[in-house]
Amino acid sequence: MRKIRMGMIGGGRGAFIGGVHRMAAALDGQIELVCGAFSSKPEVSKASGEDFFLPADRVYNDYLEMITREAELPESERMDFVSIVTPNHMHYGPAKMALDYGFHVVCDKPLSFDMDQAEELQKLVKQTGLIFALTHNYTGYPMVKQARAMIAHQEIGKIRKVVVAYPQGWLSTLLEASDQKQASWRTDPSKSGIAGAMGDIGTHAENLAEYITGLKITELCADISTLVEGRQLDDDGNVLLRFNNGARGILYASQISAGEENDLHINIYGEKGSLSWKQMEPNSLTVKWLDQPTQIYRTGVGNLYDQTNDHTRLPAGHPEGYLEAFANIYRNVAMCIRSRVLGEMPDDKYMDYPTVDDGVRGMKFVYAVVASGKSNEKWTEL
Amino acid sequence: MRKIRMGMIGGGRGAFIGGVHRMAAALDGQIELVCGAFSSKPEVSKASGEDFFLPADRVYNDYLEMITREAELPESERMDFVSIVTPNHMHYGPAKMALDYGFHVVCDKPLSFDMDQAEELQKLVKQTGLIFALTHNYTGYPMVKQARAMIAHQEIGKIRKVVVAYPQGWLSTLLEASDQKQASWRTDPSKSGIAGAMGDIGTHAENLAEYITGLKITELCADISTLVEGRQLDDDGNVLLRFNNGARGILYASQISAGEENDLHINIYGEKGSLSWKQMEPNSLTVKWLDQPTQIYRTGVGNLYDQTNDHTRLPAGHPEGYLEAFANIYRNVAMCIRSRVLGEMPDDKYMDYPTVDDGVRGMKFVYAVVASGKSNEKWTEL
Amino acid sequence: MRKIRMGMIGGGRGAFIGGVHRMAAALDGQIELVCGAFSSKPEVSKASGEDFFLPADRVYNDYLEMITREAELPESERMDFVSIVTPNHMHYGPAKMALDYGFHVVCDKPLSFDMDQAEELQKLVKQTGLIFALTHNYTGYPMVKQARAMIAHQEIGKIRKVVVAYPQGWLSTLLEASDQKQASWRTDPSKSGIAGAMGDIGTHAENLAEYITGLKITELCADISTLVEGRQLDDDGNVLLRFNNGARGILYASQISAGEENDLHINIYGEKGSLSWKQMEPNSLTVKWLDQPTQIYRTGVGNLYDQTNDHTRLPAGHPEGYLEAFANIYRNVAMCIRSRVLGEMPDDKYMDYPTVDDGVRGMKFVYAVVASGKSNEKWTEL
Amino acid sequence: MRKIRMGMIGGGRGAFIGGVHRMAAALDGQIELVCGAFSSKPEVSKASGEDFFLPADRVYNDYLEMITREAELPESERMDFVSIVTPNHMHYGPAKMALDYGFHVVCDKPLSFDMDQAEELQKLVKQTGLIFALTHNYTGYPMVKQARAMIAHQEIGKIRKVVVAYPQGWLSTLLEASDQKQASWRTDPSKSGIAGAMGDIGTHAENLAEYITGLKITELCADISTLVEGRQLDDDGNVLLRFNNGARGILYASQISAGEENDLHINIYGEKGSLSWKQMEPNSLTVKWLDQPTQIYRTGVGNLYDQTNDHTRLPAGHPEGYLEAFANIYRNVAMCIRSRVLGEMPDDKYMDYPTVDDGVRGMKFVYAVVASGKSNEKWTEL
Repeated sequence: MRKIRMGMIGGGRGAFIGGVHRMAAALDGQIELVCGAFSSKPEVSKASGEDFFLPADRVYNDYLEMITREAELPESERMDFVSIVTPNHMHYGPAKMALDYGFHVVCDKPLSFDMDQAEELQKLVKQTGLIFALTHNYTGYPMVKQARAMIAHQEIGKIRKVVVAYPQGWLSTLLEASDQKQASWRTDPSKSGIAGAMGDIGTHAENLAEYITGLKITELCADISTLVEGRQLDDDGNVLLRFNNGARGILYASQISAGEENDLHINIYGEKGSLSWKQMEPNSLTVKWLDQPTQIYRTGVGNLYDQTNDHTRLPAGHPEGYLEAFANIYRNVAMCIRSRVLGEMPDDKYMDYPTVDDGVRGMKFVYAVVASGKSNEKWTEL
Repeated sequence: MRKIRMGMIGGGRGAFIGGVHRMAAALDGQIELVCGAFSSKPEVSKASGEDFFLPADRVYNDYLEMITREAELPESERMDFVSIVTPNHMHYGPAKMALDYGFHVVCDKPLSFDMDQAEELQKLVKQTGLIFALTHNYTGYPMVKQARAMIAHQEIGKIRKVVVAYPQGWLSTLLEASDQKQASWRTDPSKSGIAGAMGDIGTHAENLAEYITGLKITELCADISTLVEGRQLDDDGNVLLRFNNGARGILYASQISAGEENDLHINIYGEKGSLSWKQMEPNSLTVKWLDQPTQIYRTGVGNLYDQTNDHTRLPAGHPEGYLEAFANIYRNVAMCIRSRVLGEMPDDKYMDYPTVDDGVRGMKFVYAVVASGKSNEKWTEL
Repeated sequence: MRKIRMGMIGGGRGAFIGGVHRMAAALDGQIELVCGAFSSKPEVSKASGEDFFLPADRVYNDYLEMITREAELPESERMDFVSIVTPNHMHYGPAKMALDYGFHVVCDKPLSFDMDQAEELQKLVKQTGLIFALTHNYTGYPMVKQARAMIAHQEIGKIRKVVVAYPQGWLSTLLEASDQKQASWRTDPSKSGIAGAMGDIGTHAENLAEYITGLKITELCADISTLVEGRQLDDDGNVLLRFNNGARGILYASQISAGEENDLHINIYGEKGSLSWKQMEPNSLTVKWLDQPTQIYRTGVGNLYDQTNDHTRLPAGHPEGYLEAFANIYRNVAMCIRSRVLGEMPDDKYMDYPTVDDGVRGMKFVYAVVASGKSNEKWTEL
Repeated sequence: MRKIRMGMIGGGRGAFIGGVHRMAAALDGQIELVCGAFSSKPEVSKASGEDFFLPADRVYNDYLEMITREAELPESERMDFVSIVTPNHMHYGPAKMALDYGFHVVCDKPLSFDMDQAEELQKLVKQTGLIFALTHNYTGYPMVKQARAMIAHQEIGKIRKVVVAYPQGWLSTLLEASDQKQASWRTDPSKSGIAGAMGDIGTHAENLAEYITGLKITELCADISTLVEGRQLDDDGNVLLRFNNGARGILYASQISAGEENDLHINIYGEKGSLSWKQMEPNSLTVKWLDQPTQIYRTGVGNLYDQTNDHTRLPAGHPEGYLEAFANIYRNVAMCIRSRVLGEMPDDKYMDYPTVDDGVRGMKFVYAVVASGKSNEKWTEL
């Protein structure tokens, strides 16, 4: 066998999430970066390719060139999949073309700029049968797997209530008025889409809640705000939720929660007990019971579910973080592509990554939240 | 001078909150329990009086007898104030009579069974000029005083968002079906009033948020639920808030959050920084800033506001808890009554306790939440 | 029955620990302060008596007068016990006289200025059969009771290692050079005795470790230092321990650990699991197991030992702190004195308070530590 | 430029630390694994090479063959450095040979089986001028860099006291009696050397304390124990320390601290403030001050030292863990080798990794601790 070959679209010098994807892809030694179109500026793409030690002829001016040319290479050389790490409005084009040309896709979230694109991509994935992973990376943490498994095994009983929150503070000022690259495109409706904070991080919260609980949000009631004057998109949102089993919930996401770093966290209350998890201390899962001592489940300690251990690399007490969780998605995708190459069925444990369907779900959530934010009706269906 | 003399209504053997009030009143040595009508059952009242070492002639069969008889005693003997620690539906009667007879009042929250009673009491307090304290005890904590003072002094700038929560888990089962005394009356609409969890603890959350921020809730949107089958009142509520300065907020309170003890906590986000406080670790106040290290303010450490230090008894690192916070209300009331006795103006620092106005405010909040819970309109005014 | 009557020696205006004792004694409504000799300055004693609402004829100029005069009062009036809250060098005199006159004693720690005094008091207590409690208050916490009971019931197996620490930072500067009252006498060998930090707080650590584990320290090796220039007594000590069952240990105490408040904490490792407890978050007891999730035992939650619950006043999540733990000693002493008054045997649960024997043990520890600090031999017997 | 080429010795299937080194080396995309002698068993080495997608002719039967053959390859192909991840007794042979053949070395800690080997390697490194990095990985954490820089910049004043601890619980039972690979060699004096826990993890604690403080331990007093019956080496050690500036200290390391995972932590007390850091929550550095609020410094937040930021990959709130810290050593080594290849001076920021001198220091520490453990003299020089 050989390493799985990745081509990257976006993520050149100065980008943030591209570097994350590259480190995540490299960590387990299963994936090799073989080519890229790293920037809309050819000279940046070229310089970036040098940074990554790529041969000049595998560094392309744009994704059109890259996909066309890679498709012409012999199978023994050409990339297996593309990794799309561009701003939201630049997901659809390369994703569609990659699928059209028979390449698997890993795409940063949210799936696309708008709903039409999202559904189009979903259709294409279904038609082609190709692998399409969306990097809702927070579901890659071992303790998130553990929480999901505990709920699936009814350990805390029927779910009654979910509180999921994603407060950040980095947009507490009008940062986009300076030349801060991240702030600029994420607050620009022509690049980000119809939502700001709710699209950027609210979708992570939604995805995490549905992934862990196995429930679906059926109705929501949102108060969506732009609290920093001069901003074009929402920077704060508070949402009441109802789930398909009757459970109640709260979801809030904010980028003006001054002093908060990246504090995604979730509390899930069942009839017999509750689970709580915080992304910033990801190796602990707090489990509370009716009238028994609280338990702290820890990565690598004791009798955890297989799916937890299969996404853990280190012994107990050796903290694994954001990149390791992100790498779990890449590792799983690589192992599934490897099975395709070998003509085998992948192991179930590797088929655990967010897909285009999660992406469509996320877009529906964003649309419903934005609609609810404008409505005087209490409940909006999702 | 002498100790201030307290008569207690309710709180006999087997009660919970009565003991809290007695310990809180005793702690600082300013108040003396001199009489009581501790139970609707005379024999329980009598036995309770013996527990508290009271002379038999100061233990009464009911509050009517107590107030009548105490009023007949010479001024040098009779009680100065009543402490009312009965279930909600039994607040109004003794409170009104005490005021009518010229006694000051400390009353457990919520103020009354319904809004009419609340407004009647408010009117009476205004007419009589007597002291009326409502034991929203959580505002008695030193770090709550500190948070309020920091916001009043604009340390974190204009408030943009408030998240206040009060999850408990003790009603996760139908506890009222057993003979558990607390569960029984708190879930019984004939004793508790129109709300369960929202009245019992939601009002604490509302009071805390308004006390610390100095803001007023103007609109709310509530999802109020009874999640344990067979229960008569709500046991869970999630509420979107809007404040009079434009700030957004979330308030939730729950008694079915399995495994939670008494986890009242609040996060307040301003333009320059944020504050967070948790009742279960009350001696810390976490202050986060835009792009500076987080600070942990601690009771007794460093340069705190006077109002903080005036409500602290011990040096740093000697944890003060629930009873000490509760005692701060009693201490302040005692010092204000003492000033009345001496014909002086009380020191400003002692005039910091929840009043009948907070009680009316809490009742309005409960009414608005219940109305919103039944409404399809998004926003209900408060 | 009646309240138990307390006379206080020391603790007038400006003192710290006197107020703690008064609040602790008052909390449960079992004890009444009836007299005192609150200061070596008669006018301070007099003014303090007024603060506490005592009749002028029960406020004395000194302990000699107080004990003599109280002994002459009829049994129905005179105090039952004295509470001694003076600096160390002033413990022996009043304690001895109180015992000689037949009064029970509650005495602040350490027991005495030197070993001779300690052993003399021990002998006297044995001879008189009177109650003598030493306020090693940290053993009064519910979770300390729980830890002790868990170990006694072999829940964590044979103890292998103990780490107990008591870092404070308040003497990081030469505070005694100013007029700070606490710093002055505690660093003065003519008032404090042969040790500074090790006597003041090292003894608390030693007492806590032996109380919880039920083990005895048999040998120690100490490095005792004065790290602030100009100070007369030790302000930092690090000690290796060996216990009578072969367990190893570390004890350190410090008053120059800059920024530490009152961070007494202990970790106890057994063959099957371990316990850890921190005084500044006293309502949690962390229990770790070989290869199972960590448990957080909490005051009031679940199936705790009776001795834990018997020292708890509030439901789960209502934090109890330093004063409540301190009050547990007073409550227990009061209940034991009450039994004497009634001619009954006290309930076992009330016979759980530190005694003169703990005091002698603490003095032996201080002497051994100081001797070891000066020795080149590795091990010094205790 | 090109990637730096690594050959690995040890770390085949079933090993623990080899995988860590491979992930750490891969993370930043600067290093390529090109060859290896992964096991003393050729078939395991061969199979492991396949796992890592190496060509068969770069997978060797042993390190002798590997170093000999790689040295014969053209410069454009051959490895730049070896990574030695074998048990302790197998460090010296390959390290010496690699240096003799002109290859740079990354070696797992401790440096060697005994002191003679350590000093021999130190001499060789000096003679050859080659890069030799020892993976005391805990110094690779950003917040450890921050702590070191804060102390170097006198932020907390002269250091008075250091408490460093490394408790683990994984050897609480006689695990080596089963076939657990890690337990077997680490408790076997013929493979591990003269010390067990003190060599395995005690040296990490020593290295961390000296790295952060910039001080040197000059004397120590150790109580070294084997607490699990049947074990051949120490599994617990408690050590008093004295530093070259007069500071006092405590170091303890244990592998029988039941329930502890990998709880390396350090508290450093200076005249003006103190620092505390815990490996299991590595992105926080707690800074306490005399009478000011405690600060929590966080990776990526605010104005940190350059050396901190240069060892951070992600924005605030995206937790970086053990592998990222480990990768910082590999990244720095790679950048220094790259400078050699390019004939340049490396940037200062990359010259920050543990060297052979740290390794010799660690061996001296182990020898002193073991000697002290057997001595009746209080102090042993280091």
